[in-house]
Amino acid sequence: LIRGIGDDAAVLRLPRGHEILVTTDFSLEDIHFRRHWAAATSIGHRTLLRGLSDIAAMGGIPLAAFLSLAVPRNLPQPWIDGFLTGLVRLATRFGVSLAGGDTSQSPEKVLADIVVVGSVPRGRAVLRSGARVGDRIYVTGQLGAAAARLARLYSARQTRIGRPRAGGLPLPRVAIGQFLRHKRIARSMIDLSDGLSTDLSHICEESKVGAEISEQSIPRARLDHTRVGMKFALHGGDDYELLFTADPRTRVPPTIGGTSITQIGEIKRARKLILCDAEGRRVELQPEGWEHFG
Amino acid sequence: LIRGIGDDAAVLRLPRGHEILVTTDFSLEDIHFRRHWAAATSIGHRTLLRGLSDIAAMGGIPLAAFLSLAVPRNLPQPWIDGFLTGLVRLATRFGVSLAGGDTSQSPEKVLADIVVVGSVPRGRAVLRSGARVGDRIYVTGQLGAAAARLARLYSARQTRIGRPRAGGLPLPRVAIGQFLRHKRIARSMIDLSDGLSTDLSHICEESKVGAEISEQSIPRARLDHTRVGMKFALHGGDDYELLFTADPRTRVPPTIGGTSITQIGEIKRARKLILCDAEGRRVELQPEGWEHFG
Repeated sequence: LIRGIGDDAAVLRLPRGHEILVTTDFSLEDIHFRRHWAAATSIGHRTLLRGLSDIAAMGGIPLAAFLSLAVPRNLPQPWIDGFLTGLVRLATRFGVSLAGGDTSQSPEKVLADIVVVGSVPRGRAVLRSGARVGDRIYVTGQLGAAAARLARLYSARQTRIGRPRAGGLPLPRVAIGQFLRHKRIARSMIDLSDGLSTDLSHICEESKVGAEISEQSIPRARLDHTRVGMKFALHGGDDYELLFTADPRTRVPPTIGGTSITQIGEIKRARKLILCDAEGRRVELQPEGWEHFG
Repeated sequence: LIRGIGDDAAVLRLPRGHEILVTTDFSLEDIHFRRHWAAATSIGHRTLLRGLSDIAAMGGIPLAAFLSLAVPRNLPQPWIDGFLTGLVRLATRFGVSLAGGDTSQSPEKVLADIVVVGSVPRGRAVLRSGARVGDRIYVTGQLGAAAARLARLYSARQTRIGRPRAGGLPLPRVAIGQFLRHKRIARSMIDLSDGLSTDLSHICEESKVGAEISEQSIPRARLDHTRVGMKFALHGGDDYELLFTADPRTRVPPTIGGTSITQIGEIKRARKLILCDAEGRRVELQPEGWEHFG
């Protein structure tokens, strides 16, 4: 970063032989989050998490973040402080500068838009379009915890949750994404922000292929020592794990940096998603992604 | 642009030996614009204009734009079409790809955030901090038209204005910015988005200097064959002209590409803004920038 906040534009220098990655993500109150359902630090964390996770899914190195933040006039200052604390703490942890952005008053609700700029060696970004028939499909970590937690909040009609433990907030899989790109393991990759069924369908669309996954192989997260329901693992958003495909001849390690890597299925020629259930029945899987609050 | 919309992040290649420029700007309904005071095409145009103008003020070359757009559920589709038409037309005119962004439903109002990524030869970005004592201060074009037009709308309490003539929409001074950088004329530069008094104060703050400008030399725009009031030229936002400073020994052409370049004052050591009025009186000028609707 050559020049950050305080000029018309930020100036960044790119590592030699690298290309630029750019991603932008909204975090809008009552669409992407509810202000009274999470601590401000957690909302700030998740705002940046979404952008870092996109860079991770390209196999990229995050360099700088830009935050556009509009808040209503009557928003308490401690909320803003908490939001920024959560965001900056995550940025620092991943060596990312907060290099600029925009601030504004908003008519009523908190509106954030995060931009993350990253880099990747020339021609080496891992795209969604690289999956080939026969590729094995893998996911990192466990799925469904975020959606299961959200469902619990909905059903309890809770109006306030406590400060989350720092350990409870998901982290972007930046190091794993870079490892999978560097070792030429992943041929296609996406982050699980909208839910497995939806995000796998994006890989299939962009790669012009289909996929078959096995229900039994899907690594379901535990919440209070119980495995979350299958629907949360299949369709729940906000997990920020990586989904990637690899040539069947490629050796894929069972863990990377302590995180489990699980094979969940295979890329097929027929352009649909098939779910093989516990009884061996094969049913078509409809993408039922993350439903926003709206 | 290597990879645009349809992946986790866009991939861009930079010209050899260049650095990256990144700027982000909100355009929020009832803060930055009113939906019933301008045609949708004009609002789309201005949304991108703000970003391109920031790149121009660095002497940069715009490469790609990213639009995050949230709209309420009941917004008529023709409004969105008009907004995108105005934005894409301006992008095309300046050779900029719309390379990505985010879309969302918004709770109530139109929320846009524009990111423009550009490039500049390494170490050659024209910063706000480059002004030196003795530098002459220049502006491009004429000032105050946008604010005078807005004041007219306010006073008339108009609820709807007609489709603006394309010629009536300001264009970012991209070519002039590049010329001033390439010919090493500008030592510091900023775009006039917040108004002359505010933007000149930004140059002074970043360069740790003061400035004296002469009222009589300020090029005031004409609206319906009448020069706009001095307050609009001094404090009115949204003009998107460039303000720059140059070493007194540097020859600055009177026009660049048909646009007039006017010397309006000089950089001083004393860290305040002084306005020399028509009677030769010197008064301190307070920055009274662009007031948002809120």
